[in-house]
Amino acid sequence: MPTPPPGSPLLGRLSLNQRTTANWTVGEAIAGAHAAGLPAIGLWREPVAEWGLDRTVAAVRDAGLRVSSLCRGGFFTDEDAEQFRLALAENREAIEEAAALGTDCLVLVPGGLPQGRRDLPAARQCVVDAIGELVPSAREAGVRLAIEPMHPIFAADRGVISTLAQALDIAELFTVDEVGVVVDTYHVWWDPDVVRDVLRAGPRIASYQVCDWITPLPADTLLGRGMMGDGHIDFGPTTEAVSAAGYSGDVEVEIFNAEIWAAPGADVVATLARRYAELIAPHL
Amino acid sequence: MPTPPPGSPLLGRLSLNQRTTANWTVGEAIAGAHAAGLPAIGLWREPVAEWGLDRTVAAVRDAGLRVSSLCRGGFFTDEDAEQFRLALAENREAIEEAAALGTDCLVLVPGGLPQGRRDLPAARQCVVDAIGELVPSAREAGVRLAIEPMHPIFAADRGVISTLAQALDIAELFTVDEVGVVVDTYHVWWDPDVVRDVLRAGPRIASYQVCDWITPLPADTLLGRGMMGDGHIDFGPTTEAVSAAGYSGDVEVEIFNAEIWAAPGADVVATLARRYAELIAPHL
Repeated sequence: MPTPPPGSPLLGRLSLNQRTTANWTVGEAIAGAHAAGLPAIGLWREPVAEWGLDRTVAAVRDAGLRVSSLCRGGFFTDEDAEQFRLALAENREAIEEAAALGTDCLVLVPGGLPQGRRDLPAARQCVVDAIGELVPSAREAGVRLAIEPMHPIFAADRGVISTLAQALDIAELFTVDEVGVVVDTYHVWWDPDVVRDVLRAGPRIASYQVCDWITPLPADTLLGRGMMGDGHIDFGPTTEAVSAAGYSGDVEVEIFNAEIWAAPGADVVATLARRYAELIAPHL
Repeated sequence: MPTPPPGSPLLGRLSLNQRTTANWTVGEAIAGAHAAGLPAIGLWREPVAEWGLDRTVAAVRDAGLRVSSLCRGGFFTDEDAEQFRLALAENREAIEEAAALGTDCLVLVPGGLPQGRRDLPAARQCVVDAIGELVPSAREAGVRLAIEPMHPIFAADRGVISTLAQALDIAELFTVDEVGVVVDTYHVWWDPDVVRDVLRAGPRIASYQVCDWITPLPADTLLGRGMMGDGHIDFGPTTEAVSAAGYSGDVEVEIFNAEIWAAPGADVVATLARRYAELIAPHL
């Protein structure tokens, strides 16, 4: 299959998460997504801050792109009162930035075990507490908090929420508009209950992200994500479940991979558009 | 705490899995475990075959050790009829070896996705089918098949059974004497439902294995296991659940770690006995 041209309905829900083309500035990523005919982009706080929030807002508007999500809030697993307060303040800034960028989806990466701590249930409880504290600010800003369950490989150092079911148990303490979940194939593909839990999520699905699980894992396991089709994930069942659950939003391609980061951004976008059209779009 | 001396009741259920001292031959591991006052050893098929099965049987008997488990059967996830038949034949040999060694626990490492395949449910079904084929042979030999759920990091390439709940769903298709499960802290520590599922396992627990989850993961993620206390796992809750579930068997220390493999075996055994006495035994 050739890469679908701009305007192809196959690309109608495809979003470039800017971390996939990490060697591009925000401006280049916006221009690159637009040039390839993608209708949406997923942004990250740090590069947006570097390039300028107002400038980003203007560039996205001028390109006519949707902002499918802002990554990331979260990292609020430390019970220490001062650390917890700082994390909440940081997340309130993230909520304001999401609102300014016109996205209603703030992705929450929960954070790992605090330094030297081993109490996983306590860290998980901090996630519940933090979200409870943040919901009023998010609601006021018209932003939904989207909990991202993370592959258990990250339970110690990045994300203590390990399954979609666990994320839903937390999300369901709040209204659908307040708290949702991120379904990322990389994080959930191994889960025996993934289809059941995607259907359970229903309108809680705030973002659907895709990339592949490749082996062998690289030395830096954070960078072990692959282009769809290069790894072991069967995208059909999960994508069909996401669709059956009623999700009609954008589908972000988010890949952390040193080899992909080293390639020219336009080539990466062309490849991901082709793979998306082959492997994802037919199941939506 | 000093290393408990031979004869200490603190060591009464401690088993050296021989892969923890991988630079020792089977004979050296048996002698080393015995010298340190450990009552049991967990063996692996390949080194036993190399050193000699009959010789191992005699050495274990002469040292007065229990064989807490034999690792490993399994690797039966390929639907291809010839591959499946070969896997069954291999597993029947493993059953006979377990019986000869006087252990009733054959650890099953399920295996990953077959080369080039992405159908995880099909691979998981192969595990169910294979166990069904093997149960008569195992029963006849007085050996219990022990399914080892593996950390989702290995779902693609080593073990498609990813949670204790999933392993139990399979085990419960058979009698308690026929099929059990392995609870290995490294594989299950992240699971939000681990305590619930250990209690559910009850008499299905065929082996309890301990080691730690360390970060950063090494380049070869197979070797990312740490000595208890060196990583992120809180051993108390899981160990207490294993005990509450009624498990009264040996506790194996199984660590794959290049640094530990490079250290003198006797030092490794002394350290693991001390850490076991500190971190595991009080919770049994």
